[in-house]
Amino acid sequence: MDDGRPGEFELIRRYFAPLAKDPGSLGLTDDAAVLTPRPGVDLVLTKDMLAADVHFFADDAPEAIAAKALRVNLSDLAAKGARPRGYLMGLALPADWTEGWVARFCNGLAADQQAYGVHLLGGDTIRSSNGLQVSITAIGEVDTGKAVRRSGARPGDILFVSGTIGDAAAGLHARLDPDFSRVHDLTQDEERHILNRYLLPRPRTGLAGPVTGFATAAMDISDGLIADSAHMARASGVGLSIDLSKVPLSGALQRLKMNARHEFMRCFNGGDDYEILASVSKDKAAAFQKAAAAAGCPVTEVGLVEEGSGTVRLHDAGQSLDLSTGGGFRHF
Amino acid sequence: MDDGRPGEFELIRRYFAPLAKDPGSLGLTDDAAVLTPRPGVDLVLTKDMLAADVHFFADDAPEAIAAKALRVNLSDLAAKGARPRGYLMGLALPADWTEGWVARFCNGLAADQQAYGVHLLGGDTIRSSNGLQVSITAIGEVDTGKAVRRSGARPGDILFVSGTIGDAAAGLHARLDPDFSRVHDLTQDEERHILNRYLLPRPRTGLAGPVTGFATAAMDISDGLIADSAHMARASGVGLSIDLSKVPLSGALQRLKMNARHEFMRCFNGGDDYEILASVSKDKAAAFQKAAAAAGCPVTEVGLVEEGSGTVRLHDAGQSLDLSTGGGFRHF
Repeated sequence: MDDGRPGEFELIRRYFAPLAKDPGSLGLTDDAAVLTPRPGVDLVLTKDMLAADVHFFADDAPEAIAAKALRVNLSDLAAKGARPRGYLMGLALPADWTEGWVARFCNGLAADQQAYGVHLLGGDTIRSSNGLQVSITAIGEVDTGKAVRRSGARPGDILFVSGTIGDAAAGLHARLDPDFSRVHDLTQDEERHILNRYLLPRPRTGLAGPVTGFATAAMDISDGLIADSAHMARASGVGLSIDLSKVPLSGALQRLKMNARHEFMRCFNGGDDYEILASVSKDKAAAFQKAAAAAGCPVTEVGLVEEGSGTVRLHDAGQSLDLSTGGGFRHF
Repeated sequence: MDDGRPGEFELIRRYFAPLAKDPGSLGLTDDAAVLTPRPGVDLVLTKDMLAADVHFFADDAPEAIAAKALRVNLSDLAAKGARPRGYLMGLALPADWTEGWVARFCNGLAADQQAYGVHLLGGDTIRSSNGLQVSITAIGEVDTGKAVRRSGARPGDILFVSGTIGDAAAGLHARLDPDFSRVHDLTQDEERHILNRYLLPRPRTGLAGPVTGFATAAMDISDGLIADSAHMARASGVGLSIDLSKVPLSGALQRLKMNARHEFMRCFNGGDDYEILASVSKDKAAAFQKAAAAAGCPVTEVGLVEEGSGTVRLHDAGQSLDLSTGGGFRHF
């Protein structure tokens, strides 16, 4: 190109083609990817779109932006019990993109491809009308009929979550307010932890097996535990009861819970957790917990499925909490 | 929402869910779509991303923007010989979006879903950091092993194109320059034709069958006939020879060719045609042409595949033309 930056085909050759190891990608030299489905599997398809200054900061490390764009999709696959197979990526580059930025972005993808066993299958690169946008469609595989939906929770089931809740939202607040950690007395380690959880989701791909093996319903937590519990409750036509005192919290969130209750609830409901919420029938609960721990993704019992019609009750060691003040995070 | 516009879930319920008739979409109420592949088929996956003021004008009719975003993907499927099955859509809405705009956009999708037999499977709606962007991933099916690639053209094959070439690029120029039609003496009908071809690509989905039945290589023409011929020539390791006097032209382009040779070449190479370029072995050429006509997408012989290494020769009734001046359209 006149400005010395590589054109689209040169970008593909230098940076994207090395990410496309699946023969179905046709080396990114064709109009489309061609996949031969393995016999006995369903394909699980998910698409998340991320925009600068909405889902990440434009000056975040390019490697981290790439990882986040891929991981939020892998999180959706894990929640359905699907093993990642590949992804297509649409990349809208702002006017001032540089080759160095693209190189680092692709390094981030390469590292995650290796970590999660997934390959680039195809995509499109365009000039953005303004800021950077990344649109990834991820494709996973699950044994035929075994995809786990949001709609299968039944009264009597036990509710589990993976990891800890609220860290990413706290990390976002710490990012936006340089005084956040000082005001709330967080240690350096605690601050580092929450900032990192905002920057880099950790999709619980290890839970795909335990989820298909044992869960009656599952979803990933992106809008906040309470908001997403309501989604599951509505899809399943049940009520969910969550005991806040059982929800696993990092050191940072425990400190917030003690010292700044309002701030805590804001983070707790803030979303971007990318943990798994799953319901499991009582007789399989112990086996689920054991399988999850064995997969390196321990899960914690946080509540129960009850009769109901899409309602969520939150209580803290027996005391009812008012949910009207804390909505989930809106990505839109 | 505070501003009276529907939130994401309300948008899904009112506008997107009615487009999601395939049971695999799970009514758009889950994290992902689940598809059970039909036995004996490969899946063809393609992703094109369109941005306001890059691929369309922000003030184009919302129905037309929707149609274009879907159709450019259907064109890729047709070029591989795949029948459309469904699509996922990422929609990044600008700050000033209105519910009426979304309603019209979805009307455009609904009309094309009916026309092309395809359904919405899933997606994501986000706030754009600036202008409207639409990212569609389309999924098609083709009998196992039958997807047609760019790389199969062999010396001796005959080259065909569908439709006419150069109209969309001329339509773009007419859009950008209100004097274009007057200066080039186009009739009102001719002007209407080129404007419409820019606004609304016509994916040659009817050619999917003839392409898998007879073509050795195929692709859709989005970067311009010459630029895309070069892509096919490189992928196939051959040379292509195109006879401009045989390339089908609309009345508008014929007039440009006669009266304004430079402008003609600019449109001819301008891209956005979304016609099919296919190579067919000599002994199947007549059958291909017959099958295409029967499918309602007549094709025209425009040249030959020769020995070569990625080269394209353009001549006009025997006279060699210099290609160094006319590159394809860059979407990036």
